[in-house]
Amino acid sequence: MAGNSLGKEFVLTLFGESHGKCAGVVVDGCPAGLELREADVQRELDKRIPKGSGIVSSRIEEDKVEILSGTFKDRTTGAPIAMIVQNRDVDSRPYELIKDVPRPGHADYPAKVRYGGFNDYRGGGQFSGRMTAALVMAGAVAKKLLAGVGVEVLAYALSIGDVRSRTDLTCEELRASVYENPVRCGDRNAALLMEKSVRQAAESRDSLGGVVRVIAYDVPPGIGDPLFGSLDSELSQALFSIPAVKGVEFGSGFGAAQSKGSQNNDPLTVVKGNVAFRTNNAGGVLGGLSTGQEIVAQVAFKPTPSISRPQMSVDLQSMKETELNLAGRHDPCIVPKAVPVVEAMVSIVLADFMIRSGRILRILK
Amino acid sequence: MAGNSLGKEFVLTLFGESHGKCAGVVVDGCPAGLELREADVQRELDKRIPKGSGIVSSRIEEDKVEILSGTFKDRTTGAPIAMIVQNRDVDSRPYELIKDVPRPGHADYPAKVRYGGFNDYRGGGQFSGRMTAALVMAGAVAKKLLAGVGVEVLAYALSIGDVRSRTDLTCEELRASVYENPVRCGDRNAALLMEKSVRQAAESRDSLGGVVRVIAYDVPPGIGDPLFGSLDSELSQALFSIPAVKGVEFGSGFGAAQSKGSQNNDPLTVVKGNVAFRTNNAGGVLGGLSTGQEIVAQVAFKPTPSISRPQMSVDLQSMKETELNLAGRHDPCIVPKAVPVVEAMVSIVLADFMIRSGRILRILK
Amino acid sequence: MAGNSLGKEFVLTLFGESHGKCAGVVVDGCPAGLELREADVQRELDKRIPKGSGIVSSRIEEDKVEILSGTFKDRTTGAPIAMIVQNRDVDSRPYELIKDVPRPGHADYPAKVRYGGFNDYRGGGQFSGRMTAALVMAGAVAKKLLAGVGVEVLAYALSIGDVRSRTDLTCEELRASVYENPVRCGDRNAALLMEKSVRQAAESRDSLGGVVRVIAYDVPPGIGDPLFGSLDSELSQALFSIPAVKGVEFGSGFGAAQSKGSQNNDPLTVVKGNVAFRTNNAGGVLGGLSTGQEIVAQVAFKPTPSISRPQMSVDLQSMKETELNLAGRHDPCIVPKAVPVVEAMVSIVLADFMIRSGRILRILK
Amino acid sequence: MAGNSLGKEFVLTLFGESHGKCAGVVVDGCPAGLELREADVQRELDKRIPKGSGIVSSRIEEDKVEILSGTFKDRTTGAPIAMIVQNRDVDSRPYELIKDVPRPGHADYPAKVRYGGFNDYRGGGQFSGRMTAALVMAGAVAKKLLAGVGVEVLAYALSIGDVRSRTDLTCEELRASVYENPVRCGDRNAALLMEKSVRQAAESRDSLGGVVRVIAYDVPPGIGDPLFGSLDSELSQALFSIPAVKGVEFGSGFGAAQSKGSQNNDPLTVVKGNVAFRTNNAGGVLGGLSTGQEIVAQVAFKPTPSISRPQMSVDLQSMKETELNLAGRHDPCIVPKAVPVVEAMVSIVLADFMIRSGRILRILK
Repeated sequence: MAGNSLGKEFVLTLFGESHGKCAGVVVDGCPAGLELREADVQRELDKRIPKGSGIVSSRIEEDKVEILSGTFKDRTTGAPIAMIVQNRDVDSRPYELIKDVPRPGHADYPAKVRYGGFNDYRGGGQFSGRMTAALVMAGAVAKKLLAGVGVEVLAYALSIGDVRSRTDLTCEELRASVYENPVRCGDRNAALLMEKSVRQAAESRDSLGGVVRVIAYDVPPGIGDPLFGSLDSELSQALFSIPAVKGVEFGSGFGAAQSKGSQNNDPLTVVKGNVAFRTNNAGGVLGGLSTGQEIVAQVAFKPTPSISRPQMSVDLQSMKETELNLAGRHDPCIVPKAVPVVEAMVSIVLADFMIRSGRILRILK
Repeated sequence: MAGNSLGKEFVLTLFGESHGKCAGVVVDGCPAGLELREADVQRELDKRIPKGSGIVSSRIEEDKVEILSGTFKDRTTGAPIAMIVQNRDVDSRPYELIKDVPRPGHADYPAKVRYGGFNDYRGGGQFSGRMTAALVMAGAVAKKLLAGVGVEVLAYALSIGDVRSRTDLTCEELRASVYENPVRCGDRNAALLMEKSVRQAAESRDSLGGVVRVIAYDVPPGIGDPLFGSLDSELSQALFSIPAVKGVEFGSGFGAAQSKGSQNNDPLTVVKGNVAFRTNNAGGVLGGLSTGQEIVAQVAFKPTPSISRPQMSVDLQSMKETELNLAGRHDPCIVPKAVPVVEAMVSIVLADFMIRSGRILRILK
Repeated sequence: MAGNSLGKEFVLTLFGESHGKCAGVVVDGCPAGLELREADVQRELDKRIPKGSGIVSSRIEEDKVEILSGTFKDRTTGAPIAMIVQNRDVDSRPYELIKDVPRPGHADYPAKVRYGGFNDYRGGGQFSGRMTAALVMAGAVAKKLLAGVGVEVLAYALSIGDVRSRTDLTCEELRASVYENPVRCGDRNAALLMEKSVRQAAESRDSLGGVVRVIAYDVPPGIGDPLFGSLDSELSQALFSIPAVKGVEFGSGFGAAQSKGSQNNDPLTVVKGNVAFRTNNAGGVLGGLSTGQEIVAQVAFKPTPSISRPQMSVDLQSMKETELNLAGRHDPCIVPKAVPVVEAMVSIVLADFMIRSGRILRILK
Repeated sequence: MAGNSLGKEFVLTLFGESHGKCAGVVVDGCPAGLELREADVQRELDKRIPKGSGIVSSRIEEDKVEILSGTFKDRTTGAPIAMIVQNRDVDSRPYELIKDVPRPGHADYPAKVRYGGFNDYRGGGQFSGRMTAALVMAGAVAKKLLAGVGVEVLAYALSIGDVRSRTDLTCEELRASVYENPVRCGDRNAALLMEKSVRQAAESRDSLGGVVRVIAYDVPPGIGDPLFGSLDSELSQALFSIPAVKGVEFGSGFGAAQSKGSQNNDPLTVVKGNVAFRTNNAGGVLGGLSTGQEIVAQVAFKPTPSISRPQMSVDLQSMKETELNLAGRHDPCIVPKAVPVVEAMVSIVLADFMIRSGRILRILK
């Protein structure tokens, strides 16, 4: 079962582990001629780590991208782009504990079954959030491609625990504010409250979940296909690939299930000679196709499963219940790190669709 | 852009339209030796139509399956299984209206852009709910494969509008009750209220949405892979392929985003010498792998976009706003018809995973 | 193992059997707006049967195409195009013989192993040359797409048995002559000799093989990619999918293996201000990319394995050697029927590449 | 257009260039539990360079494999295996010449068109024979998987220029002799003559082509599928991915085109209670399925296009004919280096088929 590739014409292949040599990705199908320097990728990678915030894990990775192939004279060549970040700050000792005592909320137990015990359990191996660095590197390429056709993808923390952001944030506000605070929320007031909640959770040796909203601006109408080729089904596939995601919805989403057709249908209108919609309950997708409105999705993240409170588990050697006490470094809330990952995944899928639809050409000039 | 195939080793390819000759599907990769008669498929197809209920569209399709290939002496041969249902009860006249005036909430407008006006707009063409008959036919094959390895997939209407079903229904209760009422709800009391709500919506020329819950029983632990090959990302991709789906969540889903790690983590325990979990907030999936618990997902359906109330739209010829008055036959709520479709899609994805994992063999005896 | 689809953006999925209801194909990814009538497909299908020639099997199939989906008002809609030819002239009785006594040179024995005896052995089931009707139907769509961008694909019998065609035939000569003789050879003199050889083989209850040459005209330079994405590797994959093919070569092919670099390299030159080549030993492909010259391949077909001479085989029930005497209707040479099939396969692959490269747009006007 | 992946369940993704940082490959879908050390891969890599022979290019690459991911405690984990060889001995200066003057027989001209001039032209970039190191690394993993199920793949130089090897070499002879001589021919007498021919070609500043035969031993019957999923079509696709391949045939191949059915059909017989065949003109493949006999293919390689004789080309800046004089280091014959590459590609495809057929399990113990 080979499951580490995503996409049809813009194709990612992941490799790496949490405590191995690196996390890496091969991006195949990127058109030739795109300006791409390591600094372009580094800028996105840096968004994953709200530096000095104290609200994320104390594991300090330089996360310095190396482009191994696919560029020449600072432009893409049309050949696959391989990129890695090496793992440096690795302390694998705490993980011997979980070799036989699965952490609740983690993949430890099913992974042991799936791989017959041969999986690299250190730091969760390939199941680690560390793999999202690879996603963000690929996303950096996708974002540059999208920028060339005027599409921008922005995400932010819509909620963390009980704290909810304002939802009327403009593109400009998001651009200006999201990465200026450690919780990646576009609403500064909510950001402060979120930060406080996360610290409180950390103090009580617990963790919080949250929802990330992602918006794609200026996607032209008519991208996608019905049924299996639909924009929302491919986006959801990509979003559920992010560790800890438990739900995905577009537009009014689960809210639509409680509304009526007369409320939920978005009436069409004409603005400056073009078709427009009066509302966007559809989240920019109808029948699997983009409508020309903003594509809006919400992505639910569960609370970080690693908490330092004692938890009940099973010793798989003795097959007895046992109390698990996790040391190690854990993020009390995954959402801040997840925001750029969600941006990356949506960018990756949209870049693939834009290439397949002929809107991004195979040679860029 | 070819987007009408789904799966890796158990692969569906859809074809057909609402008002063309047929809706059809090719199922490739089904192991040889499975007993398969048209009656097996017909049984599933019949679940789509709550006969005589009056709560679904008056379009009466016989929906009689024809198996065109892939079986011999009532068993599968290992060759692709092509199946169709012919379209008979087709009245295309009302659809000339929407050729240039897109229905709000439908794919009419983006489809016109996507296909340059060449799409078959009658009845929504390939965007029609009619295509779900093809999904159910393929699902019938998947269900038979899963039955051979002891896996069962059941779905029911968890909510319609404001009415919510009990959620503590056992497998036996679901089996006995879901298809005994026209709204496909396992909770008989809720079913009566749902039915009433649907009729009220129909009377007020409006429509309702709802949520379908689907449960897969007895999936062994360790099915799936991390990241792109994860069980939840492939399931969500399949579920979002169903027309009108706006949200998908697993286990506690969006609720997990508001809970704490100490609440949301499912503690492990030992039951009869086997690993078990005390709760199932994970919905049976951790890190993309099955845990051995029931796989539980909720799927949000929007209210049927076709309503007979006047709605605002745009005449694409004159580019002027215009009021749209839809005649035609519409389901006031899509959820009852969607229940077997959700069952089918989950079965299809699980059959693919079970084949890939070697648990369903390529020759069945 | 699902192996009945081919292509990346222009994707075929085959279904059907020799003695089942039909042979069929779904073509996914055809751009919207292509004029396509059943007559367009029928014209290609008719090329498979050199009518009244007496040099092919006496099995008379009307081979009347039915388009089941994907067109509306005589144009493609962007939805998958399903097409079938029904099987009518089916006499399955002779095949009970081969159920347990595999025909030498046929797939009977490995198919029985592969499918555990569940395969449809009548007429070879899915292994039958009959499936090439499905390939030709798909090829008809591909040819129309290619015609829109000025690409033409022509094939002819280069050799049958010991008789070899002239090789200096122009595009115009091929167009005018190939389908005017029953052996599908562009060289009229050779055609007469080939026909004679085939009749002699038939009289001696034997069969002949041969080589089909295929030429694609006016493919622009730069189509393809290195390594796995190369034009030649995808073409060869498609060509080896045709039953009875045992060899594929491009340009000087196996001859190149005996030549020197100074002979085999094609020198570049300038013709009318454009890059050209003085020779075409490359067969129009260098490093997996089209050079702008004609793409030229030779495809070796083995002699028809079904011959009415007694042959040694094994009775799989008793596991004893036994003499097999085949009745039934057999082509003494497969090459004439194969010519349009080779044209179809090359057209299909080129259409896929032209779509992926953006040279065929997703909406045709 | 993403074309750098191959396989369905055992999937390779290539990256790297001749004069970039490295050549690399990601192998996805390798079962967990396979013993795999860098030394295992190094052994295969070393076969590419007939050390000290003087008959291959003087470019000296250490070609030292680094496994970047996918193993833990010297066993595969089920996660993707990324491997690279770094490029060290790189002299890119001679290649400035060819930036605008394409080498005859090379991909230089179509690559420039294909990638709009953005391709890495140094050493041919991704079109370089150097990329075959990546294929051999992946092949090393495939070979270990196949060894576990008793399948062995061996190749040898069947002919170089006019010199032809004996063809009755046994498996044991091949194992013992092929890599003991610099031309990789199992027949020691022919090897000496081949070596002489290669040296003569080098002295006359020319190059030679040749044919590689590859044999897969002990593949069980019934592997593969008809049509697009056939063993021969997937093998040919992989083989044509190797740079410089111009022809592929199975068994009697192009010879079959000149024989009669009564000669070419392989009669069945019984040996030690099992089905066997009296001859193997089929090359072990009938109808796309393995027959249980040895799978035998011949692969034609053209003479190395890089020769130091003056050749005519075109200056793409001035669009004038010009004489090209190549310096640089070139192999006078590619065949010796190609032998382990052909072995690798056949092993890779067979490993994929054996996984898909359930004969290689997803966890190895």
